Formats: sequence, structure tokens, C-alpha cells
Amino acid sequence: MSDIINRRDLDFQVFEVHDADSLTRRERHADHSRETFTATLDTAQAIATDKFAPHNRESDENEPTFDGQKVTIIPAVKEALEAYCAAGMMSPTKDYDQGGMQLPVLVAQAASAMFKSANGPTLSYAGLTSGNANVIQNFGTERQKKKYLASLLSGRFFGTMALTEPQAGSSLSDLTTSATPNGDGTYSIKGNKIFISGGDHEMTENIVHLVLARIPGAPAGVKGISLFTVPKFHTDEDGKIGARNDVALAGLIHKMGWRGTTSTMLSFGEKGQCIGELVGEEHKGLACMFQMMNEARIGVGMGAVMYGYRGYLASLQYARERPQGRLPGNKNPADPQVQLIEHADIRRMLLAQKAYVEGALSLGLYAARLVDDQRTGETEQVRTEAGLLLDLLTPIVKSWPSQWCLEANSLAIQIHGGYGYTREYPVEQYYRDNRLNMIHEGTHGIQALDLLGRKVMMQKGAALELLGREVRKTIAEAEGSEGLRPFGEALTAAWNDVLETVRKIGSVLADDGDRALANAAVFLEAFGHTVMAWTWLRQAIVASKALPSAASDDDRDFYLGKLRACQWFFRWELPRNGPQHALLRSLDDSTFTMSPSWF
Amino acid sequence: MSDIINRRDLDFQVFEVHDADSLTRRERHADHSRETFTATLDTAQAIATDKFAPHNRESDENEPTFDGQKVTIIPAVKEALEAYCAAGMMSPTKDYDQGGMQLPVLVAQAASAMFKSANGPTLSYAGLTSGNANVIQNFGTERQKKKYLASLLSGRFFGTMALTEPQAGSSLSDLTTSATPNGDGTYSIKGNKIFISGGDHEMTENIVHLVLARIPGAPAGVKGISLFTVPKFHTDEDGKIGARNDVALAGLIHKMGWRGTTSTMLSFGEKGQCIGELVGEEHKGLACMFQMMNEARIGVGMGAVMYGYRGYLASLQYARERPQGRLPGNKNPADPQVQLIEHADIRRMLLAQKAYVEGALSLGLYAARLVDDQRTGETEQVRTEAGLLLDLLTPIVKSWPSQWCLEANSLAIQIHGGYGYTREYPVEQYYRDNRLNMIHEGTHGIQALDLLGRKVMMQKGAALELLGREVRKTIAEAEGSEGLRPFGEALTAAWNDVLETVRKIGSVLADDGDRALANAAVFLEAFGHTVMAWTWLRQAIVASKALPSAASDDDRDFYLGKLRACQWFFRWELPRNGPQHALLRSLDDSTFTMSPSWF
Repeated sequence: MSDIINRRDLDFQVFEVHDADSLTRRERHADHSRETFTATLDTAQAIATDKFAPHNRESDENEPTFDGQKVTIIPAVKEALEAYCAAGMMSPTKDYDQGGMQLPVLVAQAASAMFKSANGPTLSYAGLTSGNANVIQNFGTERQKKKYLASLLSGRFFGTMALTEPQAGSSLSDLTTSATPNGDGTYSIKGNKIFISGGDHEMTENIVHLVLARIPGAPAGVKGISLFTVPKFHTDEDGKIGARNDVALAGLIHKMGWRGTTSTMLSFGEKGQCIGELVGEEHKGLACMFQMMNEARIGVGMGAVMYGYRGYLASLQYARERPQGRLPGNKNPADPQVQLIEHADIRRMLLAQKAYVEGALSLGLYAARLVDDQRTGETEQVRTEAGLLLDLLTPIVKSWPSQWCLEANSLAIQIHGGYGYTREYPVEQYYRDNRLNMIHEGTHGIQALDLLGRKVMMQKGAALELLGREVRKTIAEAEGSEGLRPFGEALTAAWNDVLETVRKIGSVLADDGDRALANAAVFLEAFGHTVMAWTWLRQAIVASKALPSAASDDDRDFYLGKLRACQWFFRWELPRNGPQHALLRSLDDSTFTMSPSWF
Repeated sequence: MSDIINRRDLDFQVFEVHDADSLTRRERHADHSRETFTATLDTAQAIATDKFAPHNRESDENEPTFDGQKVTIIPAVKEALEAYCAAGMMSPTKDYDQGGMQLPVLVAQAASAMFKSANGPTLSYAGLTSGNANVIQNFGTERQKKKYLASLLSGRFFGTMALTEPQAGSSLSDLTTSATPNGDGTYSIKGNKIFISGGDHEMTENIVHLVLARIPGAPAGVKGISLFTVPKFHTDEDGKIGARNDVALAGLIHKMGWRGTTSTMLSFGEKGQCIGELVGEEHKGLACMFQMMNEARIGVGMGAVMYGYRGYLASLQYARERPQGRLPGNKNPADPQVQLIEHADIRRMLLAQKAYVEGALSLGLYAARLVDDQRTGETEQVRTEAGLLLDLLTPIVKSWPSQWCLEANSLAIQIHGGYGYTREYPVEQYYRDNRLNMIHEGTHGIQALDLLGRKVMMQKGAALELLGREVRKTIAEAEGSEGLRPFGEALTAAWNDVLETVRKIGSVLADDGDRALANAAVFLEAFGHTVMAWTWLRQAIVASKALPSAASDDDRDFYLGKLRACQWFFRWELPRNGPQHALLRSLDDSTFTMSPSWF
């Protein structure tokens, strides 16, 4: 089995690129040091390797079953999650007095990444639970916190987010689940939800659903949606569970991948009374849920990264070990076969994977660092700016890895040849698992509309301007290096292209929004590649500075690999943007004016 | 269930674009007419719809099993193949006196396409069998023909191609299976083969393996490989079967997709004596096998097309039926939801699929027409030129659909949203099934080396020059149409780009072949897109001419759809070539000089 991470790279990202050490100077993390951060990563790596990775295939081959009474999941999932909770991984960033470790989000995300690499479907139970806990902590009443919070953070209860309905899909505005006041402060919930991950199982004493529903008389659309806690078992303020609430499993969903995570159809209040409690204000449920969704989007992006990363490492190991043919110029069959990695086309596929997954990892951890800066940054300005940057980048952090780290998984299969297509090798599962990530937590198309229709335009382009400032800082640093200067110049051009395209689209957005946004998916790609080029240049600058004093040959090789991956991205990938910007600026309406009857 | 084909499109390709009617003027097809061609397509469509499509999912969910004695396959596979054989589909192009129908390959491929769409894994048993029969017909002895040919063509026996070995993979030069002369004209075969599709089952009385092996003392490498018939049961000249030959099933291979086709590991001569007979000359086996492989490559390409096509039709139907949200500009939640197809981004994904799959279908059928011209063209020159064009285009016909119609399958999932990721909808299976096509019958990387290292350079570029002539003919036709002239100009530029890149790479090929070929995969893509643009322009010219006299509104819509898909391809896809040619001409060595230790 291949490793779950190149730990040298993870440490590079956390400490050398995103400077985790500097976070120890903040009061919240004052007890921490590089040693405690490293110890956290070590612990995570050990548990992920020993408890999560071994049953990743077993979960795939034995998806959860429902006998009409209970959902059965292979025991290894529960064991792994228990070890995870016991090590404090459910709440690494929480306050000490909540049982947390007050770690920076950067370090917590890096730790989490290894679990995602080892076994994303098992981790997802924990990820949903901590997202759920965050919402209750931020928006719940004191009573709700007493009921649920400690149990969620300890892993005694798990949580879900129950948004999607069969008839509404991505269109939250069309949710019809109702919440009728009972007069005692509680609500009766009635309706159906679909695609609810972790919606039922026997692994924990209780499951806390966060449910979006409408209170009768609420405004139509998203402005009339409220948020409720709906436990599987009624729970008192001491966290003791009582009778069953009327949340019923209507069926399991059978997926192409990600099979270890139970995906459910739930019906609320169909047989009796399903009791829920309002979280936050009436009709303001979506805002609360969006906090969880924004976290989840970064989480989804990081999951996509790590499936890609795992496949990269598996195919790298295979390419180093497998003898296969000779170089094209060698026609002598008496010569021994060379390893796969000697072939230029195999190296292309490895280098592409490296550029996709290490670049995306760096971006995902940058987003984590922005969350830290938003929460604990030294000044109001730092905190505000971090929040703006995070808002702008979230669609990219979610979408770019979902697209390109999936492509990495395809390349990992390709390197394995016929073997890669078999279930005897792990890479086909990563490919199946990763395909989900372009869909859930806001599809690719929705991320594109969010980016172009809202994020780049918001506050008169303030976020975009801010990112531009960061990009130009990096370009200025690259100027000092002869090797990197050309990439700085290419990034300048790419950034100017983004601005020009935004100006062009912005000029028609107010008058003809639907047309202006018709090609948003192309903008998502072009912008994403530009952001990724910036991310690579940042890594290359760090590597370039560290190279002369590299501690060992391995370290030297590592930094040279970073420089080469940066070069590859700038030469092979960034130029894809050219035709995309030309298309966008032409406001091409080939799709917009395509008549449905012409298909 | 969605349709297996847009029959209007298939008829357009066969009759309007590739002019099947003109083939009836050739002596071999003199008994045929548009009516007989249409009747063949009707029959194929009916059998494919009624017998093949219904068990496509069942085969996926119930892959073949091996109990140590027998391989068990769901009964529907055999029933479908019996219906297929009974309708003469195993030998539609063969002579009347062989039980064939003397149909053009163009029509036969169009018929076959519908079976591929309905159920590729079931069809593959038949496809391998007819390929096997063709080799025996062309290179076998009279005795071998008597033994096997009629039984293969009637479906009484099935056939395989047994090339790949565990230690050799794509490197045929490293095959080690041996064939030792027994002194009576037969050979004892000893060795192991892997990934042999249809390698064992109980569906037919016998299985005829075509096996590549080395005769002791043979030259090393591919020049020492011979081809043998190796039946599962010994067979006499009347086709009667006798005792079991020593071909043993060593195990089944479990794949991500394409599960309905048994994939096997076979061992030859491990327990007793495995008898084979030489096909063709000693040490010239590869040339014989390549005939089968070239056919198989076109077949694989067409399979990739049809998985894409099926997914396109499924997602089109879904997009027409499913209400989902409102256009971005409509913020009124009281308005009813619109159908998915009303969203520009959904239309993008539909139009992309349409362009990929209809374009690739057109190219695949063009290749079929070239086989006809190679065999029955009016003059020696026509036949020779068709052969050259076919040689040049085979890597594209195989690879382009394997890449882009797989992308179509991904888009079909995306249009379905979360539902597309479930096994309750068909599109996830098409995606899994189609992923094989970049691997088997020569991987993507091998097709790229074949194209750039051999095909474009062969006979001093004669094939490329010939294709250039055809491309320019199309461009000249487009000049007459105001709407199409810009596409003609774009194609001129794209073609000139190809030529310039070939010149540049050609200038270093002799001195530094490994470096020159290092980026062959990029050339494969750029050349492929250029060929596809040409294919679309050809379709658009036909549509443009037919439009004014369209027979109905439906017909008018159909032609307008063709014109729009052409426009989309030229605006959205062809421009990808620009950066690719720039990269190729820079002879970028980012991958070539990447040190394995830097990963």
C-alpha cells in the first residue's frame, strides 16, 4: 500500500509556505510550538495510516445495508472514528475548556487531510459532525448547546446537514419541508430530504440533524427558510437520550463511489410527530447553514485534493517499481526493460498529478490559514481582509481540486495501465470516489455563478482587488530570482487577463445578467488556473530560497521537484487561459441561444 | 430508459455525410440499396434495444463468477448474442457464400454502433469473435479455416485475442510465452496471458484463442513473435470438438466497469500439453495480429463514442424533464421552476456532449467508409489512398473518443446532479465503462507515439499530405457559405499549425528521437482536435445545404443543431490547440528532463 501523504510536502506547506510558526505568537495559540504542531500531525498520520487506510477498500466493497430496521456498517468504521475522537481530532481547534486543543485551523486542516487521504468516506461522519457542532455553537441557544455540543464534540453523537429535497435539488428556494410551531417553542417538522450523508446508522447513541424547513406563513424562496435541530432520539439538557423522534430512514442511496458513507433518504414526521427546535432566527436559517456550507466547501475541496494525492503517490510507487518496455529510441529487445518512470509520457502524467495535487493542497491550506487570520489575525484589517479573500476563493478551493485532482486520479489509473482499471489496485476507487466532489456542496455550475455573479463583483470588486495585491506581492518577490522572473511575468499577464475579462463581463452584467453569466463555468476554470499559478509561484519562491542551504540530497531533490512542478504548471497549464479569456470576452452566446429543440 | 441512438443523426451520418448510397454502385454491393441498408439498421436497432439494452445494468451488477470449474454469466448475455448471430450480425460484410450479407463496412459499423450503445460488454464477445475470424480468414491455412471459420461466423464458437502477458504489458517485444514444435506441424504452447476478454465462459461450444508466442530460437523482440490458434477444445476439420486442450482459467479479473465482459488470466500448457497451430509465417505473427488490432482500435473508438452517445441521450432526456431552479436573473421564488435545459450551463454541457459524440461518430464512420474504399474503391489509387488515410487516422479514431466521449460521460453525470452519481441512474456506469477505452488496444501514450513517431512521418509525410488535401477540399466547400467561411479559415490556420509543428518536431526526430517524442501526447490532442474540427465542418456543410429544403420542422431543427454544434466546436474547442502547438514547437523538456528523484 502506498503512503497516505508525502510528509515532507505537508510539512513544507504548513511550515515553510504558510508559516504555521508565526501563529504561535497569537494569544490563542500561545501554548503551541512547532513541536506541538508536529506532534499533532504525527498523531494524525499514525491514526489515519493504522485505523483509516486499512478499511478503505473494505468499505467500498461492503457498503452500508438496511434491513428495514437498522443500518449496518462494517465495524472498522466505528473503530476508526473512536480512535479519531479519542485523539481529540473532532475538536482540535476548539477552546481548551470545550475539550479542544486550540490549534490553528491550518494545522487542523493539515491533520484532517491525512484522514481524507486514508479514507474520506469514514472521515465524513466526523466532518459533518464537527460542522454541525460549529453551527450549534455559533447560532444555537444555550439549551441546544447543553443538549448537543459536548456529545457532538466527543463523538457520542454524530451530526448531519439535511438540506436537499428530491424536488428541489440545488434550488434551496424550492424547499417544501415544513416546521409548524407547537406553541411550546418547538416545531413539528414534516417533509422529505435526500442525499443526507450519515443520515442513519448505529455507530453513535444519537444523530443530530440540522434541517432546513419553512415555518407556515414564511416568505417564499430562500428568505423564508429556517434552521432546526432534529435529533434521532429526543435529548435532554444533560445530553441524555429518550424516546425516538419521528425521523425515518426512507431508503439508502447506492452510489458509484464514496460507498463507505451512508447516503440516505429521510422522512420527517411521516408517521407521528417529528419535533425540531429553531436554530438562530426565524427565516434566517440559510445564513446559519451557509457557515457550515462554506466550511464544508473547503472540506470538499480538501477531500478532492487528497483523493488525488493518494492516487498520485500510488501511481508514483507503481511507476518506480514496474519495468515496462524501453525508450522509443532503443530498438534492442535484449536490453532489460526500464521502469515505467523512465518514459517521458509517464513522467508527464506524474508531473501533472504532482502539479495538480500539491498545488491544490497548498491552496486548500492557504484557505485554512485565511480562516485563522479571519479569527485571530492581529488587526481588524487583517481579519476583514482574510474574510474577503476567503469568500472570493471558496469557489476555487472547492471546484478546482474537484476537477483537476479528479483528472489526477484518471492519470493515476492510466499509469497503471490495465491493472489500474481493476479493483485489485486502489486507484480506480479514488477515481470513483472523487467524482462526487464536483457535485455536492454546490455543483460546479453553482460555484461558477457564485464566483462570477457574486464574489468577484462584491463590494465593487474589493475582494478581487485584495487578491490582486497578494498576487502582485508574489510577483515582486519572483523578480529577484532569474529563474522565477519569467513566471512572475506570465502571472502578471494572466492576472491582467482576469481583470480585463471581469471588466468586460461586468459591463453587461447589470443589463443582461443571464447572458453575462452564461459562460461562468469557463471563467471559473480560467480564474482557477490563475490562482493555481500564483500558488505554484509562491511555493517556488520558498523552494528557490531554501535550495542553496538544503539539508540533504533528499531535501535538494524535493526543492528541485517543486521548481520543476512550478515550471510545468506555467508552461503546460496556465496557457490554457488564453483561449478561455478570448471566448469570455467575445461574450459568445453559442450555449445561451442554443434552442432546446435543436438538440 | 433513454434511446440507444438518435436515429436521425445516424442516418445523417451514413447517408448524407458518408454517402452510403454511392457504395451500391460497386459490384460487391450491387444487390444493395438504401432500403436494404435501412432495413439492416432497423433490425440492428430493434435487437439492440430489445435484447442488449435491457441487461446492461444487470451485467454490471452481476459480473461473471468462477467457481473453480465453470464461469457463470447471466443468461441474458447468451440470449442477446444468439439473437445477434441469428440476424446475421456476426458477418454482415462477409461474402454471401460465407453466410454474409456483403454489406459495406460503413453500414455494418453503423449497425454495430447501436449494439455498443445498448450494451458494449455483451457485444464485445461478438466483436472479438469476428476479429478473430477475419485473421483466420486472411492468414489461416485452409485446414484452419475449415476447423473454425464457419463456427466463428455462426457464433457456435467465440474467439479471443491473447496478446498481453503480466510481465510485458504494452511491451509486446517482451512476450515470453513459448511455442515448441511437436514435429507434426503443431506446437506446444506454454505461458501466461492476462486481460484476455472472453477468455473463458460456457456460452459457446468452443473458444478459439489467437495467441502470440515465441518459437525457440526466434529472434528477440517483436520480430520473433508468431501467431497461433489455440482452441479450448480440440477441433477437427468438420468443426467437431473433441478433448479439452490445456488452456486453463487462472482467474477472473475484477474491473471498475465493463463488468459484463469476462476478463481472464489464462495459463497455457501448465498441466499437460497445450496444442496450437501456426497462423501465417513463423515470426510474422505481429503483422497478422495487427490486422485484428487495427480493426479493434476502430472498434474501441466506436465503443467509446457510443458510451458517450448513450450518456448524452440520457442526460438530454433528464434535462428536458427535470424542473430545477430559475434563471439567474429571476429572483421570484413564486415563479415555477424551469426545466434544467433552460439553464445556460446545462446547455453548455449538452452542447459539449453533442459536439463530442456526434463528431466522434462521424469520424468513426468515416474510418469505416475508408475501409470500404480500401477494399472496394473504384481505382487502385482510391484504394491505396484510403489505406494511407486509415493508417494515419487510426490513432485518432481510437484515442479521441476515448478521451472526449469519456468527458461527455462525466458531463452527463454532472447534468443529473446527485442522481447521476447514484446507481439508480445509468450514466455512472457509462462513465466507468468508458474509462477502459484509453487503456486497451494500445494505451493513449502508445497511440501518441504511433501517430507522431510513425504515422505522420511515414512515406515522407504522404498520409499527412493526403489528409491535407481532403481538409482543403472541405475548406474550399465552406468558402461558398457565408456562415461557414470563418470556420474554413480557422481550419486552414489549424491545419497549418499542425504542419508547422510536424516540421519542427521532424527536424529533431532523427537526431534526438526520445526528446522529440516526449510530448507526443500533446500532439495527439492537438491533431485530434484539428481532425474533429474538419469532421464538424464536413457535417455543417451538409447541414447547411440541406437546411433550405428541410422536410419538416424537426428536420430543420436537426440541421440547425448541427450548425450550432459546429460553431461551438470551432469557438470553444479548436482554440485549445493554440497553446498546445506553442508548447510542442518550444520542444519543452519539462517532463523529459524531470529526474525521477525529484518526485
